[in-house]
Amino acid sequence: MNAGIIGATGYAGAELTRLLSGHPKIDKLILSSVSFEGGRIEDIYHNFLGKIEGKLVKAEDVIAASDVVFAALPHAVGEEFAQACQEKKIHYIDLSADFRFDDDEAVYSAWYGKNYKYPQLHKKSIYGLPEMNRQRIKDAALKEPLVIGNPGCYPTGATLGVLPALSERLIASGNMPVIIDAASGASGGGREPSRSFHYSECADSVAPYKVASHRHSPEIARNLAAAAHRTGMSAPQVIFTPHLAPMLRGILSTIYIPLSEKWRVTSENSNLPLSKAAEAKTGEIRELYSAFYRDEHFVRVLPEGLTASTNRVRQSNFCDISVHIDINGSTLIVITAIDNMVKGAAGQAVQNMNILFGFEETAGLEAIPMLF
Amino acid sequence: MNAGIIGATGYAGAELTRLLSGHPKIDKLILSSVSFEGGRIEDIYHNFLGKIEGKLVKAEDVIAASDVVFAALPHAVGEEFAQACQEKKIHYIDLSADFRFDDDEAVYSAWYGKNYKYPQLHKKSIYGLPEMNRQRIKDAALKEPLVIGNPGCYPTGATLGVLPALSERLIASGNMPVIIDAASGASGGGREPSRSFHYSECADSVAPYKVASHRHSPEIARNLAAAAHRTGMSAPQVIFTPHLAPMLRGILSTIYIPLSEKWRVTSENSNLPLSKAAEAKTGEIRELYSAFYRDEHFVRVLPEGLTASTNRVRQSNFCDISVHIDINGSTLIVITAIDNMVKGAAGQAVQNMNILFGFEETAGLEAIPMLF
Amino acid sequence: MNAGIIGATGYAGAELTRLLSGHPKIDKLILSSVSFEGGRIEDIYHNFLGKIEGKLVKAEDVIAASDVVFAALPHAVGEEFAQACQEKKIHYIDLSADFRFDDDEAVYSAWYGKNYKYPQLHKKSIYGLPEMNRQRIKDAALKEPLVIGNPGCYPTGATLGVLPALSERLIASGNMPVIIDAASGASGGGREPSRSFHYSECADSVAPYKVASHRHSPEIARNLAAAAHRTGMSAPQVIFTPHLAPMLRGILSTIYIPLSEKWRVTSENSNLPLSKAAEAKTGEIRELYSAFYRDEHFVRVLPEGLTASTNRVRQSNFCDISVHIDINGSTLIVITAIDNMVKGAAGQAVQNMNILFGFEETAGLEAIPMLF
Amino acid sequence: MNAGIIGATGYAGAELTRLLSGHPKIDKLILSSVSFEGGRIEDIYHNFLGKIEGKLVKAEDVIAASDVVFAALPHAVGEEFAQACQEKKIHYIDLSADFRFDDDEAVYSAWYGKNYKYPQLHKKSIYGLPEMNRQRIKDAALKEPLVIGNPGCYPTGATLGVLPALSERLIASGNMPVIIDAASGASGGGREPSRSFHYSECADSVAPYKVASHRHSPEIARNLAAAAHRTGMSAPQVIFTPHLAPMLRGILSTIYIPLSEKWRVTSENSNLPLSKAAEAKTGEIRELYSAFYRDEHFVRVLPEGLTASTNRVRQSNFCDISVHIDINGSTLIVITAIDNMVKGAAGQAVQNMNILFGFEETAGLEAIPMLF
Repeated sequence: MNAGIIGATGYAGAELTRLLSGHPKIDKLILSSVSFEGGRIEDIYHNFLGKIEGKLVKAEDVIAASDVVFAALPHAVGEEFAQACQEKKIHYIDLSADFRFDDDEAVYSAWYGKNYKYPQLHKKSIYGLPEMNRQRIKDAALKEPLVIGNPGCYPTGATLGVLPALSERLIASGNMPVIIDAASGASGGGREPSRSFHYSECADSVAPYKVASHRHSPEIARNLAAAAHRTGMSAPQVIFTPHLAPMLRGILSTIYIPLSEKWRVTSENSNLPLSKAAEAKTGEIRELYSAFYRDEHFVRVLPEGLTASTNRVRQSNFCDISVHIDINGSTLIVITAIDNMVKGAAGQAVQNMNILFGFEETAGLEAIPMLF
Repeated sequence: MNAGIIGATGYAGAELTRLLSGHPKIDKLILSSVSFEGGRIEDIYHNFLGKIEGKLVKAEDVIAASDVVFAALPHAVGEEFAQACQEKKIHYIDLSADFRFDDDEAVYSAWYGKNYKYPQLHKKSIYGLPEMNRQRIKDAALKEPLVIGNPGCYPTGATLGVLPALSERLIASGNMPVIIDAASGASGGGREPSRSFHYSECADSVAPYKVASHRHSPEIARNLAAAAHRTGMSAPQVIFTPHLAPMLRGILSTIYIPLSEKWRVTSENSNLPLSKAAEAKTGEIRELYSAFYRDEHFVRVLPEGLTASTNRVRQSNFCDISVHIDINGSTLIVITAIDNMVKGAAGQAVQNMNILFGFEETAGLEAIPMLF
Repeated sequence: MNAGIIGATGYAGAELTRLLSGHPKIDKLILSSVSFEGGRIEDIYHNFLGKIEGKLVKAEDVIAASDVVFAALPHAVGEEFAQACQEKKIHYIDLSADFRFDDDEAVYSAWYGKNYKYPQLHKKSIYGLPEMNRQRIKDAALKEPLVIGNPGCYPTGATLGVLPALSERLIASGNMPVIIDAASGASGGGREPSRSFHYSECADSVAPYKVASHRHSPEIARNLAAAAHRTGMSAPQVIFTPHLAPMLRGILSTIYIPLSEKWRVTSENSNLPLSKAAEAKTGEIRELYSAFYRDEHFVRVLPEGLTASTNRVRQSNFCDISVHIDINGSTLIVITAIDNMVKGAAGQAVQNMNILFGFEETAGLEAIPMLF
Repeated sequence: MNAGIIGATGYAGAELTRLLSGHPKIDKLILSSVSFEGGRIEDIYHNFLGKIEGKLVKAEDVIAASDVVFAALPHAVGEEFAQACQEKKIHYIDLSADFRFDDDEAVYSAWYGKNYKYPQLHKKSIYGLPEMNRQRIKDAALKEPLVIGNPGCYPTGATLGVLPALSERLIASGNMPVIIDAASGASGGGREPSRSFHYSECADSVAPYKVASHRHSPEIARNLAAAAHRTGMSAPQVIFTPHLAPMLRGILSTIYIPLSEKWRVTSENSNLPLSKAAEAKTGEIRELYSAFYRDEHFVRVLPEGLTASTNRVRQSNFCDISVHIDINGSTLIVITAIDNMVKGAAGQAVQNMNILFGFEETAGLEAIPMLF
């Protein structure tokens, strides 16, 4: 089977190239790049030297030669390619934001400043977070060629941390927000040099950015609303603050979830001392999280005593999750760690391909995290 | 005037040594170290080579030769020295947690596992956050030798971010917590090698630690309760989560403050579009913060468009603060950045000395932050 | 086939565990650890959580259950295990220095402070640098169980950079030394916390160490002497200076090789302008290097215009090499880059296993380098 | 006294701003910037917020208002300003390469691609390495306004490491080169974002660059030739290889100097065992180095047992030097460490100003190095 990547020379495209070049079901990779057409990916990424065959071609040539197409493009340029893949009747996996909002064009337009060109594509596209939508993807893939909107990096780490709390109705209803405070490595900023990612001005420092205005906010909110809806809860309010941390890869999300009456640790609802009661409740919640993700290969709910950190998932497709209850007893603190380039981008895209084609879901994604 | 440092060879002691060696009012520094007595600080910190005179002596000799004594010791070993300074009638500035809880021995014991040995010292000691207690320190210093409990690093950044919100009654009363999500550089972990600070296991990664159990939680809660009390508000609930970030210095605190009814941005309380209304409210709050800190040399409330980051205060005694309102309109997000070793430890101790002696408060602390 | 690792919980052992767990020919891994016997490797390295089966056992149990044994132990403790493997008639691959000096006990003793306990083992052991000794290993493995002395990290990068220059007789004879100036990432220092690898004291700094006294000097010198001997040259003098650089992995070696009369660029031996002549000679030498390594999968001689750097080989078994001639025309500058944990340790050990058993030499080592 | 900086918004200009703003003899700073004229330096460097008065003006206005002018400009644009300062009869300190080559226009043109516009300026300009040329600067400054060519960062660290060896005739004459293998922090690359300094592609990696072609080579060679000339030796051949290391500041130079017959450690010239003899000779050489730099405040020759590293001089004007003899006895290894932005640029410029005006040479440069 041949796989194509449109936009292979950005960071997400290069990471896809790395992962797919080792995928057991892919015979041939066809790569395109507008900026470097005719060249080779090893000219841009010297780490690939001698490892990737073929020249960079036009996007159309990628589509023509492939059985599945990935697009790792800037926002608002991929719809044409999605449409072309529909016409060719092959699956299309989009790593931009273009297909993350289904048919909610209003939200997409408000945050990305563009309208949909092929609205019907957005009626059938599916948001590719396997832990939410695996069955929908599987079922739909049996019937027709699909368009998958691969999730954003921050939304992946945030959503996976909150899903079980929504499913198990741990979250207080009312006006207390779910707060997601997250830090990302610099690769999330992409390949283009800029002041924000200039070594001398971002190394050895932590810097929040786009406070109260990051485009991943509406995507997270939408995910949580959808999950809340499934259990009849109202959509929680979401606050999301991203930070740039001086590391290459990884997203660490620290998530504050207000506990519902039932789950709060108070002197009224327990006859244990509070710290013991909190420990017990934390244990129960850990069990619920573990049960929720029991069949998910790529989500690891950590045992008592461990706290998620980005170097424990480095360069793997895992999402590690640890759960904690604050000393006040009213807030669940969930920590999630992913590699932003793998589970947060290219790895999840490969996972989606595996689901679409009925491959082993771990195919090409077996890498054990590297501690260092 | 002579200044003495007990425990000069830990990181806080060494930073005090650096700052005091350049202080215009200090003629002589006398340093002690239990572990390295008889040696020189330059034997341990080669950066000091040729710059610091004198050998490391006993703590008693420091007290005997000094006009002011700083102690940069582990917790629960400094009371004896404080008592000796009282007897000698000289000021004592303690950088451990021992004098941060005033006479609230219960909280201190619960979190630090020790009882007070000289309870009367804790009746008179003052918590040395100048922006809260400057006048108390000034007034008391005129009357008697003082014991100053120098604040913890995290509590400094957290408290400075919330004080104006409490003073101006921006905070909602009720059960919504103030959440402080903070990241510290590795120097906060001190000089002793350990796995947590082993380069290969902490570089290039963000790792939360002591989630829901860090000793700085009660110190922050006490500070906010005291400030709330001053304006007749009830003490806010506090949630605090520390993270280790791969940087040498700095603490970045991202603080989520639920806004009171009056300050929330809603369609009811504004006839502007919401985003405009939020902008306007943010401007008002920025004004209030600026006014609150108008006379504080070391607190910089950032103008619109800037967000605090640790590299903008690096190696200075500044605390930078930026204020933001979340898109939902219900939460104030305050970001503060300090250098954990300066404003978060040794610099603040020097600032306290300057206040105690009526020196220019900036003496010895004029360093401009280094961007890199 | 079962593979065993004695000393699985050090960094080299953990890296072996990672690589062998994904090796297509290994059915089962058996791991031992003196310090953590009875526990699991995931208790020490949380990145392995859920990925590695079985408990840590005794070294004897490893040997009993394995078809090949790797030892990743401190120096001078592995001979017993090598002997036991001989008795069981299975191959033994030692990652310590114990079997790197063949029967030259004098040098080993001088630098490592121990004598050989089983001298006969050192008569048959082979130094496991495949690019030097592949054929010897292959041939010997057909006849009997072997003991392989896996090369040191620095000697691997240094030797691969000089081999072709010796083979092609590019090096001046006489008293000018070959100088190897090398920088290593912190993982080379191993798992044990110490001041040298304490984040606050090694981050953001370059620090030479063991100048003129590093134990890898005699190993490099021995390798170059052996290679010189093969072409009838006298052994070159070697100077080696290691530096600790603030990175997790990688060794960058900058090697200065005095060119022989024939290869020097001078106005006498060329009728081109000197810079053109140097370019031409560099091209010739690059060709010789490329030809020398033509059949070596893991050595990449870089094309003109590229310079080796550690991030281009990160987490792969590659050694990248670039060649340059100094503007003075008299010195060849060879730059080599390896991942110290892979080609410099565990990856090379797996490569040796592949050779011993006649597997594809790349089995389990297909990872493409990660740029970031 | 007023000081002016032309080109204040590059990294060297900003560092000058930081240092001069705290200089006890400077009353007022006047800053210019072509790109940001009319703005304030704090708009570009937020760390300066509230600390630097005045707007960015035109270069002419800087010259008009200043008693001394610093230029921190790209190469080949400063001669006009130097000329204008001559006409105004004030000293001019140039941080570019324009005045580093005296009247050797041929070398300057060959490496920088420009000719001199005001050749007479280059006849009187002095290379501002105080440890070489202090007396010349002092004497000339008494007579007329000077033009100082502030040394390059690499040449500073390299030259200071070799000067005593030349002065004391430790170096072998003949064809063995002095090799300088150096690593610099990223701030050396300046403020402009580019791929080479993009965090994701330079963090966690060591990368040589401009091998055999860096513009600092001829500057180093010229310095060493001049020093050799002073003791009647022939100019040594110089090989220089720069590396980018993942750190903010600092240059570490590892220098290999072939020892003369007299200084070599051989069994012929010593009746001690070789290692003892090497130790003794190293001690002698350390003494010579110490004696050579006895009156130099900013050069610290390290005692036995210490090796220079960049974090020991961080943010100070010091150059640390350690000396070692290789185990073969034939090569002196000198390690030097400087802060590239201070002793390697802005600090040295301030030092030159102090000399020109007869101030204490340490004025404004008293900062103790920061270990972290």
